[in-house]
Amino acid sequence: MNEHSRGSALGPTGAGELFQLLRDGHPRTRAQLALETGLARSTITTRVDELMGLGLVLPVAEAASTGGRPPSQFALNPRARVVLAADLGASHATLAITDLTGIVLAEHSQRIDIAAGPVAVLTWLAETTMSLLKRLGLGECDLVAIGIGVPGPVHFESGQPANPPIMPGWNGFDIPGWLGRILPVPVLVDNDVNIMALGERATNFPTVEHFMFVKVATGIGAGLVSGGRLQRGAQGIAGDIGHVRVGRGGDIQCQCGNSGCLEALASGPAIASSLRAQGLEAAGTTEVIDLVKAGNTMAIQAVRQAGRDLGEVLSTCVSLMNPSVIAIGGSMARAGEHLIAGVREVVYSRSTPLATEHLRIMPSASAAHAGVLGASALAVHHALSPSGIAALSSQ
Amino acid sequence: MNEHSRGSALGPTGAGELFQLLRDGHPRTRAQLALETGLARSTITTRVDELMGLGLVLPVAEAASTGGRPPSQFALNPRARVVLAADLGASHATLAITDLTGIVLAEHSQRIDIAAGPVAVLTWLAETTMSLLKRLGLGECDLVAIGIGVPGPVHFESGQPANPPIMPGWNGFDIPGWLGRILPVPVLVDNDVNIMALGERATNFPTVEHFMFVKVATGIGAGLVSGGRLQRGAQGIAGDIGHVRVGRGGDIQCQCGNSGCLEALASGPAIASSLRAQGLEAAGTTEVIDLVKAGNTMAIQAVRQAGRDLGEVLSTCVSLMNPSVIAIGGSMARAGEHLIAGVREVVYSRSTPLATEHLRIMPSASAAHAGVLGASALAVHHALSPSGIAALSSQ
Repeated sequence: MNEHSRGSALGPTGAGELFQLLRDGHPRTRAQLALETGLARSTITTRVDELMGLGLVLPVAEAASTGGRPPSQFALNPRARVVLAADLGASHATLAITDLTGIVLAEHSQRIDIAAGPVAVLTWLAETTMSLLKRLGLGECDLVAIGIGVPGPVHFESGQPANPPIMPGWNGFDIPGWLGRILPVPVLVDNDVNIMALGERATNFPTVEHFMFVKVATGIGAGLVSGGRLQRGAQGIAGDIGHVRVGRGGDIQCQCGNSGCLEALASGPAIASSLRAQGLEAAGTTEVIDLVKAGNTMAIQAVRQAGRDLGEVLSTCVSLMNPSVIAIGGSMARAGEHLIAGVREVVYSRSTPLATEHLRIMPSASAAHAGVLGASALAVHHALSPSGIAALSSQ
Repeated sequence: MNEHSRGSALGPTGAGELFQLLRDGHPRTRAQLALETGLARSTITTRVDELMGLGLVLPVAEAASTGGRPPSQFALNPRARVVLAADLGASHATLAITDLTGIVLAEHSQRIDIAAGPVAVLTWLAETTMSLLKRLGLGECDLVAIGIGVPGPVHFESGQPANPPIMPGWNGFDIPGWLGRILPVPVLVDNDVNIMALGERATNFPTVEHFMFVKVATGIGAGLVSGGRLQRGAQGIAGDIGHVRVGRGGDIQCQCGNSGCLEALASGPAIASSLRAQGLEAAGTTEVIDLVKAGNTMAIQAVRQAGRDLGEVLSTCVSLMNPSVIAIGGSMARAGEHLIAGVREVVYSRSTPLATEHLRIMPSASAAHAGVLGASALAVHHALSPSGIAALSSQ
């Protein structure tokens, strides 16, 4: 019976519920709010006053008068508060302070070592957050939530990494609990590919209901949006396509303990390894991309083949999920059109004509920024939810 | 920003919205309804009266008094109206009249030929519906919606089949429009595997949020529930896994025009064909099942191998969607444990340990009834939605 949402569920209608209407940015009068909600005018007045008290809503230019005193209009104040958005990779991190519409106000990127463990990395994160706030002339009280992407599986409800293979020391670590003692705001933690999917979609495909973001870098993973919602799966590991077996994989060993995995054939390190076996100098992803950009035929062929391997897995994903857009990002996407060409070659030949008729397969447009944009969206979404606003009101 | 639903969206709160609370079957007093909705007591009284006028709500045993006159309680009346649930296959159909909780009140099954075209099949469907209603002592006015599953892709919003390969004459046919002229109620149409997924889940796994139903019969397809919602994909063909290429497929031709498709290897007719090539007499699925039940080793091995082929595709589905239950139904599931054993063998060896730790792969428990139960759920869900009730009120 859950195949659709059940229309507008009722519940006690606080200021937070009213605010959901104003999140679209359109100004409304009290009368319009009363009409749209069915709430009494007196209730609307109380709720609007509460939201103005929090600074979340501001009066804006007067609406056209219908005679008598012109009614005041109210709209979301995007600069009322800020969020911290963090995209933590294995060896690199980007932190950003954004406003409530996801606009980046200040940003900092640097090399990190995720394997240094949660205390070292999160201490650095908290200190950097404070200095970014200071740079903007803001204080801790302006921060309303934190969104973090990490390079491994996460139990989303608790914010704890779940057996992340490249994050030693992080398994089961209570990121929201630990960080919340330094920065006392809600902390949302998700897998890095999931936040990239959220960011890419929020920025470039806000109306696409069935969307897939694929990251090809040291690892390979996907973030899935079905029916307009990010799908995390039963254990929070939906989209974990790096260890799907690929046809030409044969007995190529993967670090997961299985053989023939997509990641063992088509990741940046896997391509570099295949080029070294052919006598080229390619320590990792960066050198592969340099070779491709220099026009090296062997490197171009290897990247194209990696695209075909990825396409083999994605053609099953297309049959299963029937998305309308697949965006491909991650450091290997910088190799240009060759990777995508390989993907398209296989997906368009293998998937059913009905599934590919309107399917677009394209490079990520948000590129390196997809992660922080998604982490911001995650944090803002929580902060502006009815329960988030109720928490603000009670402070 | 759509990764979660936005809490309880507000909107004009009619009787239909109020009714959503009562759909759980728990009786409530007017005071409890006012508390849960935040609506004025006078509004609650008006809405409850409206729902009682429609017969959808009945007063039930009095609540414990808090002094003074004991307050009346109200609850959903499951027999207020009925729906028609239809599961149309290529050569067989089941029709059922169910109440508003999905309980079957009357049922009829018979052989049909879907290729006779929509007018012939739907005329039969309408006539059978009338005679089932009559058998129950009910009339047309008791019917509140119709749910239909058909063996092909459907554009769910319009209820029109979309290039269905085994339904000649049905492409783009306006099933709700045509049928609505004979039986003037809302008609919901979906792919047969989708309604089987809805029915199997509603009956046996109502709390499972990430669920997959796989039908193995003349064709092979899947119905997906992610985040508690049936996922239809951009063109309504999510779950169309029959034409995914399988490793051992080689150049085995499929009727879709490609080669090596799952359906060309693991469907009932494909297994029968492979057994005939080994000198056995097996015209189709029924004979394959008979041979398996008789203990024929070649037939058992062929079914087990079909399970492995299916498992190869499902292991990718498991990595991608991270479901917690996969139910396997369709006529080939009657071959018993051999098919499922093959599926499990490959999925548990190929998928990541985290994805399979809590994964259950099991035979469909609803079996032949999954389709009508799902069609009933689809119809009831629509009829009892706020817009469905608004339509009833305006009659």
